Amino acid sequence: MSRELIVALDAMGGDHAPESVVKGASIARVRHPDVRFLMCGPEERLRALLKEHPKLEAVTTIDHTDDVVTGDAKPAVALRQGRNSSMRRAIDAVEAGRAMAVVSAGNTGALMAMAKVALRTLPGITRPAIAGLFPTQRGECAMLDLGANVQCDAQNLVQFAVMGEVFARTVLALPEPTVGLLNVGSEDMKGNDALREANGILGAASMPMRYRGFIEGTDIAGGTVDVVVTDGFTGNVALKTAEGTSKLVGEYVRQSFKNSIIAKLGYVLARSAFNKMRARLDPRRYNGAMFLGLNGIVVKSHGGTDAIGFANAVAVAVDMAREGLLAKIREDFDRIRAQRDMTGGGGPVAAVAV
Amino acid sequence: MSRELIVALDAMGGDHAPESVVKGASIARVRHPDVRFLMCGPEERLRALLKEHPKLEAVTTIDHTDDVVTGDAKPAVALRQGRNSSMRRAIDAVEAGRAMAVVSAGNTGALMAMAKVALRTLPGITRPAIAGLFPTQRGECAMLDLGANVQCDAQNLVQFAVMGEVFARTVLALPEPTVGLLNVGSEDMKGNDALREANGILGAASMPMRYRGFIEGTDIAGGTVDVVVTDGFTGNVALKTAEGTSKLVGEYVRQSFKNSIIAKLGYVLARSAFNKMRARLDPRRYNGAMFLGLNGIVVKSHGGTDAIGFANAVAVAVDMAREGLLAKIREDFDRIRAQRDMTGGGGPVAAVAV
Repeated sequence: MSRELIVALDAMGGDHAPESVVKGASIARVRHPDVRFLMCGPEERLRALLKEHPKLEAVTTIDHTDDVVTGDAKPAVALRQGRNSSMRRAIDAVEAGRAMAVVSAGNTGALMAMAKVALRTLPGITRPAIAGLFPTQRGECAMLDLGANVQCDAQNLVQFAVMGEVFARTVLALPEPTVGLLNVGSEDMKGNDALREANGILGAASMPMRYRGFIEGTDIAGGTVDVVVTDGFTGNVALKTAEGTSKLVGEYVRQSFKNSIIAKLGYVLARSAFNKMRARLDPRRYNGAMFLGLNGIVVKSHGGTDAIGFANAVAVAVDMAREGLLAKIREDFDRIRAQRDMTGGGGPVAAVAV
Repeated sequence: MSRELIVALDAMGGDHAPESVVKGASIARVRHPDVRFLMCGPEERLRALLKEHPKLEAVTTIDHTDDVVTGDAKPAVALRQGRNSSMRRAIDAVEAGRAMAVVSAGNTGALMAMAKVALRTLPGITRPAIAGLFPTQRGECAMLDLGANVQCDAQNLVQFAVMGEVFARTVLALPEPTVGLLNVGSEDMKGNDALREANGILGAASMPMRYRGFIEGTDIAGGTVDVVVTDGFTGNVALKTAEGTSKLVGEYVRQSFKNSIIAKLGYVLARSAFNKMRARLDPRRYNGAMFLGLNGIVVKSHGGTDAIGFANAVAVAVDMAREGLLAKIREDFDRIRAQRDMTGGGGPVAAVAV
């Protein structure tokens, strides 16, 4: 790309900030040599850390501020009192066009609230959603919403489906991603009203999407679809249940190796294969939740992650920016609305209108 | 126990019925030598199968019927047209006192609908729930509801908590089980209105329960609490997400062993340890979902399970019957209501009233 790609970083967000942020940016710089960074945070502290990474320092600008949003701050409080925080300054840089994306490992609720106010939602989208990637039997899938919207109506779910489909098409480079709606069974009558209504809209022939209908919890890791659509409550529980289960099974595997001297010897022999498996399940690999539906690219890194995890979150932001994701989401919503206008304003796509 | 324990079996429920039912009962007979069976289904076919299990035949009575509830029958249709089905006859045997528990691997929705009509709910309970056991880092936990009630209010959730706590105390033999409410975060303000209201009621000092507040998806396999309370939609998604994830990780483990000849040799050495691990995660081990809140013990076996899985479901029914679970749930609700009456009919326990 000819245009320079600048990523704004909330240097003070996360449990190990600012060290993990600077180290993570240093790893990201090697991977993306054409990217520049705008670090928002306390200048002196950041300068001292950057001294150890001269190549990163050369591509980094610092936007000084001493204010931070704490991890336990309520979103409304952060909005009012955090106007000068490292988080807000990084978001504002995207709003002002000084950066093409923002990455923060800080307070999720505050980040979403500030991003909504500063960047606003894309035309046609009522509420932004948090999307993430999951490992599956067939590779990986995208899932949204992971917690931004505890309660969702049919319109929200349909919008999530459109955004998720565009995301899978552009960032995951899938030519024709399939989409499913998470439910407690695959029959049309299952679930609540919002799910049934969204199912009807998404299933309409006029919807430009390979919609596969209702799916169940087993289908997430099963890889039945490329995009799993759900409300933020269910998505968050599913995400964390999968994390907990994966950790439990990993623990069982470790324990079984300790069962006998022969099993231990087996471990020594199979170790490198196991390390590869662990790498595939490494949560840092899937770090970087995307806020979709805003006039700007916002990526949330896990608060407890290290430099490697943070670098992966930066990679997600870089991918989204490079692929022009926002423009494509906008185009898709315009197309759907144009289709609706042609059919007289009603019909199955009415639910995605502004 | 002096009184004879009779378990009614829906001989025609499940993908491999009646073979899996008869074989499963045969395994169960060995484990529970004092139990007798009432098999509901086609007499001639069952007699032929029982010929191969003479010891089982000696403790089995057949209640002949040719009618069955199909796997895809809607609950309302099954209720109307299935009055003479093997499923209904098995439930009716419990209602009439001819059996102490019923086990079916048939259609879940039909089983719940028939059980509600025939057995009715216990005093103080508005809606029955489906409970199941999960493996955790600390052993196992009970979770409910797993799908009987897609939408739940605070009162339902509080009732589930009381039933689940009694279940863990009696059948799991935990002296003081801990209880948590599944949410998207542990702060009091998280979740929807029903969750916050239930949290307030369960957290009241007068509630005879070790209530631990809100928990998250990671806490299920993490073993943070002994009883996980949630609505049927979330519980069903969490259950199936955990199943899918566990299968995926198992698949990764298998693949990693195939990576090289040395890894394969490692597998040969660690094999017996791995078989133990697989046994711990075997879904048949956790087969047998309990319908809690009815005037009778109803256990749902997975429809696709084999004889070993079905025998485990029978074991669950036998445990529940032996421990006098229903009487204890009744006592607990009576106690809570008595407390409410003493405090003038209002207060935090009002929500568990009939």
